[in-house]
Amino acid sequence: MNFLTIIDYIGTFAFAISGIRLASAKKFDWFGAYVVGFVTAVGGGTIRDVLLGVTPFWMLQPSYLIVTAIALLFVIVFGRYVIHLNNTFFIFDAIGLGLFAIVGIEKSIAHGYPIWVGLIMGTITGAAGGVMRDTLINEEPLIFRKEIYALACVIGGVCYYFCDYMGVASTLTQIIGAISVILVRILAVKYQLGLPHLKGEEINS
Amino acid sequence: MNFLTIIDYIGTFAFAISGIRLASAKKFDWFGAYVVGFVTAVGGGTIRDVLLGVTPFWMLQPSYLIVTAIALLFVIVFGRYVIHLNNTFFIFDAIGLGLFAIVGIEKSIAHGYPIWVGLIMGTITGAAGGVMRDTLINEEPLIFRKEIYALACVIGGVCYYFCDYMGVASTLTQIIGAISVILVRILAVKYQLGLPHLKGEEINS
Amino acid sequence: MNFLTIIDYIGTFAFAISGIRLASAKKFDWFGAYVVGFVTAVGGGTIRDVLLGVTPFWMLQPSYLIVTAIALLFVIVFGRYVIHLNNTFFIFDAIGLGLFAIVGIEKSIAHGYPIWVGLIMGTITGAAGGVMRDTLINEEPLIFRKEIYALACVIGGVCYYFCDYMGVASTLTQIIGAISVILVRILAVKYQLGLPHLKGEEINS
Repeated sequence: MNFLTIIDYIGTFAFAISGIRLASAKKFDWFGAYVVGFVTAVGGGTIRDVLLGVTPFWMLQPSYLIVTAIALLFVIVFGRYVIHLNNTFFIFDAIGLGLFAIVGIEKSIAHGYPIWVGLIMGTITGAAGGVMRDTLINEEPLIFRKEIYALACVIGGVCYYFCDYMGVASTLTQIIGAISVILVRILAVKYQLGLPHLKGEEINS
Repeated sequence: MNFLTIIDYIGTFAFAISGIRLASAKKFDWFGAYVVGFVTAVGGGTIRDVLLGVTPFWMLQPSYLIVTAIALLFVIVFGRYVIHLNNTFFIFDAIGLGLFAIVGIEKSIAHGYPIWVGLIMGTITGAAGGVMRDTLINEEPLIFRKEIYALACVIGGVCYYFCDYMGVASTLTQIIGAISVILVRILAVKYQLGLPHLKGEEINS
Repeated sequence: MNFLTIIDYIGTFAFAISGIRLASAKKFDWFGAYVVGFVTAVGGGTIRDVLLGVTPFWMLQPSYLIVTAIALLFVIVFGRYVIHLNNTFFIFDAIGLGLFAIVGIEKSIAHGYPIWVGLIMGTITGAAGGVMRDTLINEEPLIFRKEIYALACVIGGVCYYFCDYMGVASTLTQIIGAISVILVRILAVKYQLGLPHLKGEEINS
């Protein structure tokens, strides 16, 4: 098990936990919480793979199912403590976001797509699972209103392509890309940076 | 028209009725009710086929459209009586669940996937249409909070694979698998069996 | 840039505006509004392409991303005036609906599918983006309850296939099909034509 795989599992675990916790707030049962956790963790990559026309990554090996099961067990056992670990999970979640975004970009490149498709695929891989989670639990997707989240994937993706263009070695390019996503995300939350909001108006259509 | 086809149509009819009735409670028009009914009936199998990378089954022959049209006509004509047929529809729905789960497993096996993918595909085929229905009518998916529903597909799937492993003839394996789903579902509702719920907590993320 | 391409961009623009305006009413930030606008504009065609098993059209050239960006800029700059342009956008939206429906039908025919699949693909291309928009902003899909919308795609599609069957030249067939959709839509709104609604009942399942 190499370094990237461990990071991948940590990201999956953090994403699954975020789904399971929100499902728990909605009083879902264990199975429902598991499904929401799994969808949060693999939903973005699944949409990416369907759009790219390849078999969804989690159908090729059962580790994502297992990691989600561990996440569920974790919430069941440590439920009352999990709530105090907000900061820890936030860091895990940011790491997952960064890794997932880079994985999405590289898969897009491997299939011969141009930069702008790669940026979209990176963003979908990182952020779409959270949107699917919010749809399943019948809430408005948070990422459309709060601090910079999906945009961090775009910014990190631009860094990735810039390094790539400058001829930086591929491993370093990956690391710089992922760290850019993570940094943007952490700074956005720390300083409550957000994009402007459109002025809401009453519309009758 | 053989036995399996008839069962398939009964399951489709029951699933479509469940979608149309909920759409009716939301005052959808006929077309909207038809769409919700159709999505409820074929949505699970469609997600399965997209994940497996094959053409969705309902695009190969129009019978699912027709069965849904009959279901809509049925609700329009017998609307006030349909509500008193809860038990009848419950049985049909359970039968559909059992059949759809086994169809999903077999399609997954036919494409060379291992057991755990088959269990997921069976569950998606049986239960995802209902989740799509609840998303369309903007409700929290019921199956994540009420009696055992999706889990019945998993349990029936385990029975299926166990029979398969023991060398039971394929037709009998199918029947045992489907009946396991149906039995688990009926017993769960009769005795109000459910999974534990996660303890809901106020979370601020 | 030929006539059809211009119409295509106008339709995309109108659909994107409709998504961005509703996102604005929900106080989404710019990025969220962009995503909702993009999904509204390309969502229907994306579902169609995934069901047909081909690469989603917007992944082949970046113009749909750019048109959506212009739509967002337009709402940001002219926000307070946009609300007074309801009628203008309604016409654009109807034109987009007509064009998208015919594009969906022709893509379905090009892949060898029969009429009834074409009618579904035309309807999905025209109307599913709006359903995805309403799901993202956590509202019940409007098209299931208000004036004839998705049904206009079906009616226009029937006109298309009728002309095709009668041997009308393909360009004329396209124009008649699209205009049928647009006319049905405009007449439906002008005279508040709608389908009957199912009688809502309290149901306890």
